[in-house]
Amino acid sequence: MAWWKMSAAGRDTNPDLSSERGSPSFNVEALTNILDGGVEETRLRRAVVGAILKDPVFSREYLYFKTRSERYEGAIRNTFHMKKKMKEMGWDENGPEIELIYRALGGEIALNIHNVFVKSISALGTDEQVAKWLPLALNYKILGTYAQTELGHGTYLRGLETTATFDPSTQEFIIDTPQITATKWWPGDLGKTSTHAVVLAQLYSNGKKYGMHPFIVQVRSLEDHSPLPGITVGDIGPKMSFESIDNGFLIMRNIRIPKDNMLSRYSQVLPDGSYVKRGSDKINYFTMIAVRVNMLQREVLEALMKACTISVRYSAVRRQSELKPGDREPKILEYQTQQQKLLPLVATCYAVSFTAKYVNTFYHEVYSEIKNENFNTLPELHALTAGMKAFATEVCSNGVEVCRKACGGHGYSLYSGLPSLYTKVTASCTYEGENTVLHLQTARFLIKCFTGAQLGQPLPASTAYLSSPGAGGCKAVRPADFLNPDVYLKAYEYRAYSLVKSAANKMESLVKSGAEQYLAWNNTSVELVKASIAHSHFLIVKTFASALNALSDQPDIKAVLKRLCDLYALHGIFTSAGDFLQHGYVSGKQLDMVTTAYLGLLAELRKDAVLLVDAFDYTDEELLSALGSYDGHVYHNLLEWAQKNPENKKVSPEGDGDRYLSAYRSTGLIVLLVNFSECA
Amino acid sequence: MAWWKMSAAGRDTNPDLSSERGSPSFNVEALTNILDGGVEETRLRRAVVGAILKDPVFSREYLYFKTRSERYEGAIRNTFHMKKKMKEMGWDENGPEIELIYRALGGEIALNIHNVFVKSISALGTDEQVAKWLPLALNYKILGTYAQTELGHGTYLRGLETTATFDPSTQEFIIDTPQITATKWWPGDLGKTSTHAVVLAQLYSNGKKYGMHPFIVQVRSLEDHSPLPGITVGDIGPKMSFESIDNGFLIMRNIRIPKDNMLSRYSQVLPDGSYVKRGSDKINYFTMIAVRVNMLQREVLEALMKACTISVRYSAVRRQSELKPGDREPKILEYQTQQQKLLPLVATCYAVSFTAKYVNTFYHEVYSEIKNENFNTLPELHALTAGMKAFATEVCSNGVEVCRKACGGHGYSLYSGLPSLYTKVTASCTYEGENTVLHLQTARFLIKCFTGAQLGQPLPASTAYLSSPGAGGCKAVRPADFLNPDVYLKAYEYRAYSLVKSAANKMESLVKSGAEQYLAWNNTSVELVKASIAHSHFLIVKTFASALNALSDQPDIKAVLKRLCDLYALHGIFTSAGDFLQHGYVSGKQLDMVTTAYLGLLAELRKDAVLLVDAFDYTDEELLSALGSYDGHVYHNLLEWAQKNPENKKVSPEGDGDRYLSAYRSTGLIVLLVNFSECA
Repeated sequence: MAWWKMSAAGRDTNPDLSSERGSPSFNVEALTNILDGGVEETRLRRAVVGAILKDPVFSREYLYFKTRSERYEGAIRNTFHMKKKMKEMGWDENGPEIELIYRALGGEIALNIHNVFVKSISALGTDEQVAKWLPLALNYKILGTYAQTELGHGTYLRGLETTATFDPSTQEFIIDTPQITATKWWPGDLGKTSTHAVVLAQLYSNGKKYGMHPFIVQVRSLEDHSPLPGITVGDIGPKMSFESIDNGFLIMRNIRIPKDNMLSRYSQVLPDGSYVKRGSDKINYFTMIAVRVNMLQREVLEALMKACTISVRYSAVRRQSELKPGDREPKILEYQTQQQKLLPLVATCYAVSFTAKYVNTFYHEVYSEIKNENFNTLPELHALTAGMKAFATEVCSNGVEVCRKACGGHGYSLYSGLPSLYTKVTASCTYEGENTVLHLQTARFLIKCFTGAQLGQPLPASTAYLSSPGAGGCKAVRPADFLNPDVYLKAYEYRAYSLVKSAANKMESLVKSGAEQYLAWNNTSVELVKASIAHSHFLIVKTFASALNALSDQPDIKAVLKRLCDLYALHGIFTSAGDFLQHGYVSGKQLDMVTTAYLGLLAELRKDAVLLVDAFDYTDEELLSALGSYDGHVYHNLLEWAQKNPENKKVSPEGDGDRYLSAYRSTGLIVLLVNFSECA
Repeated sequence: MAWWKMSAAGRDTNPDLSSERGSPSFNVEALTNILDGGVEETRLRRAVVGAILKDPVFSREYLYFKTRSERYEGAIRNTFHMKKKMKEMGWDENGPEIELIYRALGGEIALNIHNVFVKSISALGTDEQVAKWLPLALNYKILGTYAQTELGHGTYLRGLETTATFDPSTQEFIIDTPQITATKWWPGDLGKTSTHAVVLAQLYSNGKKYGMHPFIVQVRSLEDHSPLPGITVGDIGPKMSFESIDNGFLIMRNIRIPKDNMLSRYSQVLPDGSYVKRGSDKINYFTMIAVRVNMLQREVLEALMKACTISVRYSAVRRQSELKPGDREPKILEYQTQQQKLLPLVATCYAVSFTAKYVNTFYHEVYSEIKNENFNTLPELHALTAGMKAFATEVCSNGVEVCRKACGGHGYSLYSGLPSLYTKVTASCTYEGENTVLHLQTARFLIKCFTGAQLGQPLPASTAYLSSPGAGGCKAVRPADFLNPDVYLKAYEYRAYSLVKSAANKMESLVKSGAEQYLAWNNTSVELVKASIAHSHFLIVKTFASALNALSDQPDIKAVLKRLCDLYALHGIFTSAGDFLQHGYVSGKQLDMVTTAYLGLLAELRKDAVLLVDAFDYTDEELLSALGSYDGHVYHNLLEWAQKNPENKKVSPEGDGDRYLSAYRSTGLIVLLVNFSECA
C-alpha cells in the first residue's frame, strides 16, 4: 500500500523508539510500581483507566476540534456517564477509583464545584442544614457552586466585599453586592449550570461587622433556569484553558434569604441579631491545605509527566541536522542541548513525585494530631505546603513549556498535546494561593524560625538547619565528588540558610535604622521570596535523596534514581549558581566541577530517557498527543489527525463551506474575486 | 444610576490611574517620539492607526468569542478591505504605512504567505517568469503560498526530501513527496486558500542531485478550488494561536509541471537535462536575515510592550491585601515583588527597542556593501541577528508570560489580552530559526573570532572585546558605583569573554585528548549557548547605554532612560549572578551592592512606571484588554465584556441553547434531570 494511505494503526513500533527499549538497565514495571505506590496500586490504576478509556462515551478523540460549548456539554455528559459507570463497575464514591477516573478523563468533567458546594454544606452546616440540603444536592435536584472570589478580591479573603445583613424584623439576611468590585467572579459551574451557591459574605448584624460567613443563595429558577429577580449571573467568558468549565459571575442586589440559610455549624445569628460563635473552625483551614497537597500530585505533576513523555519520545524519533559530517541525521535526543532541556525535567518529575508523597504523609500525621486538638504542627505544615505549592507549580508549568518548545514547530500544534497541557497547568501558579503570596507566607515562617533559633528556641524538623550555622565550605575536589548526596545537600542547606539569614539581617537592620516593620518587610520581599524558593528546593533534593535509601533491595532502580537525583541537584546548582557562589560555600572552580559532573550525567541518563518516561505509564488516549504515542509513529499521527479535522471536510467540494470558499466551489475563482473586489 | 448599569464609556479616568500621571518627571510625548524615531513618525503612525481603527469593518470587538473559521474569514475580509482602504487613503503599497496598518490590525490579516509567493517569484524568477506569474498573483487570479518546511524537516533545509526530477522526454519536472516525512507542513494560506505554491524541492537531473530549488506547482483547481489529481492538501489544524491563519499540508504524488515552472534566475536546467548555475544567490540569503531584523521590532517587541502596558496599568488600579496595618488595601504596584516582576520588563522594552534600531541600521549598512559585492561583514551580521533573534524572542516571550501571571486570575481571562499575546509571541522562539540552533550559530562565530584573536587576527566591532583579556576585577566599592554604565558594561563584557573563552578552551582540550571535532562541539554545546546568550546580553546593554549619549539635550528623558538602563543591566546581574561571580570578576560583596542598587532602582522607577508604558502609545483598540485600558476602569470592562459574550445570550430563556440547558428552559429542572438520569 502506498505510504499516504497507511495509518499508524496496527503497525510495529517505530524502530527508532523500539531501539531505545532494547536493553533496559532497570525493570520499568518495578519503577512504575514505585511511582504508583505499590504493585496493587498499579493494577488498580490500569483497571480503572482501562475501563474508562474503552468506553466510547468518554472518547476525547475529537477534543482539539471542539468549541467551548461542545466541551461544556461533553463534560456534563461525562459527569453523569461516570456516575452510571461507577455503579456498573461497583466502584464506591469514596473509593480509590475516583482519583483515577479523573486522571483518565483529563479534566473533561463538570460539576466539580458542585462537589465543593456539597462538601461546604457538610463541613459548615448544622445537622439540620445538612439533612435539608444534602439530599437535594446529591440527587441533583439543585446544582450548586461555591462563590468566594470577587472581581476585586482574590487571594486576600478579608477584603471580600459582599455583605449579608441580618434583618431581625423579617428574620432574613439581605445579601448584597454593594459595588462592582464585589461581583462574584470565577466560581466554576456558575456560568451556566448552578441553581444555588454557597456565597461567602461579610456578616453584619445590629450594625456590627462579624467577618466572612457562608450563606446558601438560590440564583436561578428551578422551573426555567432563568436568573431570579435581583440576580445577574452568567459565564465570565473564554480563558486560556478550562474550555469545558463554565466559570461564572454573580451580582446580587439586596437578595433576601431565610435566616436558616446561613451555614451555622461554627457560628450563628440568634433571632434578636446577637452573634454566637461555637467551637473552633480551625480545622476548616485544613481544607485549603488539603487542596494544595492534592494539587501537587494530581494536576501539576501529571502535566509535567505527560509533557516529558511526549517530548522525550518525540526526541527519540525526530531526526534533524547533522552531528557527525556525512552521517544520517541524528535523533535530536543526541544533542547535548536537547538533553539539557528534557532530562532535568524528567528528574524533576521523580523529585516532585517523591516530594508529593512526603508532603502527603506529613499532612496525614498533622491531620491526626489536629483531630486530637493538637495544633502545634499546623504552622509548619502550612509553611511547607505553601512553599511547595508555589515551587512545584512554577517548575512544572515552566517545565511543560520547555518540553513544548523542545518539540519545535510540531510542539506548537494542538495535536502535540503540549499547548493544552501548558495553558491549563499554568493556572495552578495563580489559583489556590498566588505563588508570590505563598512564598512570602513560607518566608514569614522561616524568618520566625531563624529568629527563634537565635533565641535558643527549638525548631521543627523541616527548618532545623536554620539553627546551625553550617560548617566550613564545600569539600569537593573533583567532579565525581559532586555525585554524592551528602556533598550537594550541604550546599543546598547552606544556600537556604544564607538566604534566610541575609533576609533576616536586612530586615533587622532596616528596622534598627528606623523603618517601620511593614516597610522593612516589603523592601526585603524580593529576597524573602528567594529564601523560600531555596528552602523548598533544599527540601525537595533532601526528600529525593532520602527516598533512595528505601531502595536497597532494587539496586538497578536505585542506581538510575540515584543518577536522576544527582542530575536534579546538580542542574539546580548549575542554573542557580549565583546563590551557591555568593557566600563562598561553593567556589568558582567547584562550579566548574559541578558543570562537568552535570553534563556527564546528561550523557549517561540519555540512555535511560525513554524508559524513564515509559515508567510514567500513560496510555496514548491519556496523552492525546500525536508526538507522544507509545509506538512513535509521529508523522503518521499528525497526518491522520489533520485529515480527520472537520474543517478539512469543508474544503472538499462536497462539504458545507464558508462564504468565500463556497464561492470558489459554486462558480469558480471568478466569483470569489468578484466578492473580493467588492472590497479591493 | 446604579453601578451595575454603568459602563466604563464616557467616565473620567480612574483616579488610581490619573494620580500616576499627575506630575510626570519627563515629557511622555517626547519619549514616544524617540521610540517612533521622530515627531513626524509619531504623527504618521497615529494617523494610520487611527484611520484603521475607526473603520468598523476592521473592528476586533468580538475577537475573543470567535471560532477559527470566523477568524479566518475575518482575516480574508480585512485583507481585501485593507487594499480598498489604502486606495481610498492614497497610501502606497511600498510606503511606510503598510507596517503601521499591520500593527493596527494585530495580526488579523490573511494572504501573508501569498505575499511571500509574490516576492519569491520576483526574486528567484527570470524576467519572463516574473512577467508571466506576477500579474496573475498581484490581481489574485491565482493565490500562492511558499512551501518549504516538511513534516520531518524544519530548520535544517538541506534535509528536505521533496524531489523534482527532470524528464527530458517531456521537458517536465516530476514533483514528488517520496515519503511521509516529505509532506509539506506549515505553509500559511495553504490550508484553505492557495491555488499555487512555490515548492522547494531537491532537484534531480540525469541522475544527479543538485540540491534545493524552487518550483511553481498548482495545487487546486481554478474552477472549483478542489485539489488537483495527485494532490492531497488541507489545513493542519488548530495551533496554540494564529487562529486566523490556514497553515496547510501538501502531498504531491508524481505531479508533472512544465520545465518553465522552475524559477530560474540563478540556475537552470537545459532541455538536455544539463544544469547551469548563473550568478550568485548569496543575496537571497539576506531575505532570512531581513525577516529576523523585522521580527524584533514588529512581532516580538510589540508583544512585550503591550503586555507591559496592560500589566503596569492594572497594577496601578488593582488593590490587594495589606501593607501598612489598618490602611486601605494598597495598589499592587506598591509591592516590591510586583515591581520586581514588571519594571525590569519595562526596561527590557526600551533595551530591545534601541537594539532593534541598532541592528536595523547595521543591516542597512551591510546591505549597501553587499550590493557592491562586498560580503565581508555578512558573517558578523548573521551572527548578530541570529543571537539577537534568539535572545530577544526568549526574553520577550517569557516576559509577556510574567506580565500575565502578575495580573493574577484576571490575567488568565482572554479579556486581559495577555493569553493571546503569549500564545502568539512564543511561536517566535521556534519560527525563523529555532533559538538553540541560532545561538549555536552565533557561538560558532564567537569561537572563530576568539580563536582568530589568539592568532592575532583583527576582529569585527561587535566581537572586538574577545581579543582583550579584560582587566583586573570589578572596581565598585559601594552600591552607587553600580549606577555607572562603565562599571556594569565591563562586568558584562568580562562575563561574555570568560564564557566564550572557557567554551573554546574546553573544546580545544577535548580535541587534544582525542575527541572528534563534532563530538567536542556537541559536548560543549550547553556552554556554547550560554556564551552566545552572554554575548547578546552584553551587546544589548551596550547599545542601551550608548543610546543615552544621544539624549544630552533632553535631560529629563535622559535621566529616566538612564535609570531604566541601570535597572536593565543590574537586573541581569542579579538574575544571572553565577556567570558574574564564577570567574571572580564580581565578588560576593559586590553582588550585595548590585542587589541594593537594583532594589533601590525598583522603588525609584515605580513612580514613572505608568508613564513609561503610556509612552508606548497603544490605543485601547490595539491592546484589546479589559485590564489595560487607558482610563483604568478594569472591573467595568470585565463585566461589560462578560455581558456581551454571545454564550450568555444563550443562557437567557430567549436564546438558542445547548441540549441540556434547553431542557431546563422548556420544561424545568425535572426534564434536565431525566436527561441526566438516563446516564446516572
